[in-house]
Amino acid sequence: MNLNWIADRTKAFDSSGIRKVFDLAAKLKDPVNLSIGQPDFDVPQRVRQSCIDAIESGKNGYALTQGMPILRDKLQQQVDAQFGHADRKVFVCSGTSGGLVLTMMTMVNPGDEVIIFDPYFVMYESLVKLVGGVPVIIDTYPDFQIDLDAVKQRITDKTKLILFNSPANPTGVVASREKTQAIAELAAQRNIALISDEIYSKFCYDEALTSPAEFNSDTIVIDGFSKSYGMTGWRVGYVHGPAEVIDTMVKLQQYTFVCAPQPAQWACATALDEDISGYVDQYRDKRNRMIDGLKDHFDVTVPGGAFYVFPKAPIASGAEFVQKAIERSLLIIPGNIFSKRDSHFRISYAADDKVIDRGIEILQRLAEDLR
Amino acid sequence: MNLNWIADRTKAFDSSGIRKVFDLAAKLKDPVNLSIGQPDFDVPQRVRQSCIDAIESGKNGYALTQGMPILRDKLQQQVDAQFGHADRKVFVCSGTSGGLVLTMMTMVNPGDEVIIFDPYFVMYESLVKLVGGVPVIIDTYPDFQIDLDAVKQRITDKTKLILFNSPANPTGVVASREKTQAIAELAAQRNIALISDEIYSKFCYDEALTSPAEFNSDTIVIDGFSKSYGMTGWRVGYVHGPAEVIDTMVKLQQYTFVCAPQPAQWACATALDEDISGYVDQYRDKRNRMIDGLKDHFDVTVPGGAFYVFPKAPIASGAEFVQKAIERSLLIIPGNIFSKRDSHFRISYAADDKVIDRGIEILQRLAEDLR
Repeated sequence: MNLNWIADRTKAFDSSGIRKVFDLAAKLKDPVNLSIGQPDFDVPQRVRQSCIDAIESGKNGYALTQGMPILRDKLQQQVDAQFGHADRKVFVCSGTSGGLVLTMMTMVNPGDEVIIFDPYFVMYESLVKLVGGVPVIIDTYPDFQIDLDAVKQRITDKTKLILFNSPANPTGVVASREKTQAIAELAAQRNIALISDEIYSKFCYDEALTSPAEFNSDTIVIDGFSKSYGMTGWRVGYVHGPAEVIDTMVKLQQYTFVCAPQPAQWACATALDEDISGYVDQYRDKRNRMIDGLKDHFDVTVPGGAFYVFPKAPIASGAEFVQKAIERSLLIIPGNIFSKRDSHFRISYAADDKVIDRGIEILQRLAEDLR
Repeated sequence: MNLNWIADRTKAFDSSGIRKVFDLAAKLKDPVNLSIGQPDFDVPQRVRQSCIDAIESGKNGYALTQGMPILRDKLQQQVDAQFGHADRKVFVCSGTSGGLVLTMMTMVNPGDEVIIFDPYFVMYESLVKLVGGVPVIIDTYPDFQIDLDAVKQRITDKTKLILFNSPANPTGVVASREKTQAIAELAAQRNIALISDEIYSKFCYDEALTSPAEFNSDTIVIDGFSKSYGMTGWRVGYVHGPAEVIDTMVKLQQYTFVCAPQPAQWACATALDEDISGYVDQYRDKRNRMIDGLKDHFDVTVPGGAFYVFPKAPIASGAEFVQKAIERSLLIIPGNIFSKRDSHFRISYAADDKVIDRGIEILQRLAEDLR
């Protein structure tokens, strides 16, 4: 078939790199899988029960586009208590990804420039291109902290958004309070919208997350329930920011993906009262376990959050290193999926400790063999 | 705040008309509500249980982007059995609306023309504009059947898609088999993509639905579970069509809304074995009840499907008529929400028979008073 029906914008989406990795891994019988971007714990019991109760009591129809009041009101109260911004409004969307898509559609005109920090979450560059925006990619190697002067140099008349992500995927790095304040104030001074993707906000191991919204009341914050409560398959996220932006995003949601699933929204209202510090403690231990296992063999920045580590490969190409790891039954992700550079690789420690230990052992031996 | 952050494309979404209607209705204490676009029955018990089982057994993580095998494989078998097209592939998306959005993003380049039949589902025109397409709107009053010559006249070098919807929202009209075949063959001859929105496929009262895919193997069919199984809040739809188109849509889904909710997908696999003919029989009775109540007072086309009736208002303006109905506690939707004309109004009979009867009584009196 050559009907020539496929639109040009679809070229912005190139998943061949990651497909190649998974094709290689598909040949493995029982891989040591340290590639997974979701927690290894299940939804807490009370939260599951809340979803079941919603289903049993007939809460299965369309949700209000802006979110069910039981959840939206609770989120609004939290956000008001945390920031105290008069104009800050929250709405519920279909996953954090859904929030990102709506943000791009709502704010980026064709030709607008969007600043992205490299390495970056895979979706960022593609989503900017999807709406006709121009990604402006700023390198943050080797410590993955933002260099404010580099940002200032890349700001132009066309700069519309800065996409900020802390704790970050794929590095796990948490921006320092000082860096966060500086980027927040810079965005405010230049009338550039600051988008803060805080999906890993609960997974901070050394200090609580500083949101740039503390310093810039027009910051648009994207967060969700997927990672914090083990419900990546339930598709509920939320966004808060200036009312005008949020109202427009709600309107776009109404005409595109309509609403987030209703039963899951009732469960998320329950989740907000759930104490997940036990999980966070476990993940801090996993982080430490992973770093202890890697630090003598790899050049690695100690990450303060999320559940990723992003070490430098001991050979020139991260992709080549990952291929060698897969040959030894370890599934990890090459850094060039998230970056213009091909020097690093991503490990996820959202896994059982035994799997982590097996992964560390393979990586240590591989590093020794490649020395 | 005047930060000028809102992108131009958002102007394509104007919900002020419908907001005005709901603002008026908000003043009512206990309205007779015949405005609802979802069934009045709940998710069948076995299907609810299947969702609960999935939640309880830990099926709460990301779904595969193309859909969970248990559901996708079953849908593929159904589609293969029905059409026998070698190249037809199916994937699972976030509701029928999500399928529509992905179709537009995947297929429509800026400047491409998309043929829409008036009256049309509210999303159609907005979604075309969202991706920079040009809506070409073809009037189908008074019988809401497509005039093939009118379509031929409006086809240009830039015509990319025809958006076909039978049974239709807001008219409930089912395209005749002859008209369906004619439009399907025309699209094939002219290398125009035909999108068939079949979300109401199960709600056909006089004869089974003829899909244009029977006559045109490149037809892209969008369908879902929301309306058929009372699960509009579960957000599961599916799309089938030529493999190249579907593969690209899956890639776009991966980079935007990721996947449809996982537990609901297990339930939808169960739903496919559910017999809903009892509901369909009930809705046929409701259709007859509504038409019997209206036929002596209104100029109305008898609809063959969905759960809508679209009568002509007995005064010049449908919007004005709806306002008068709301003043008498009946909530219905003005036709100009779905149309360039303001002459009709939409009634939904997805309601209890008593509510339908009260609605009919109000409408009859109103028509008599306006005579």
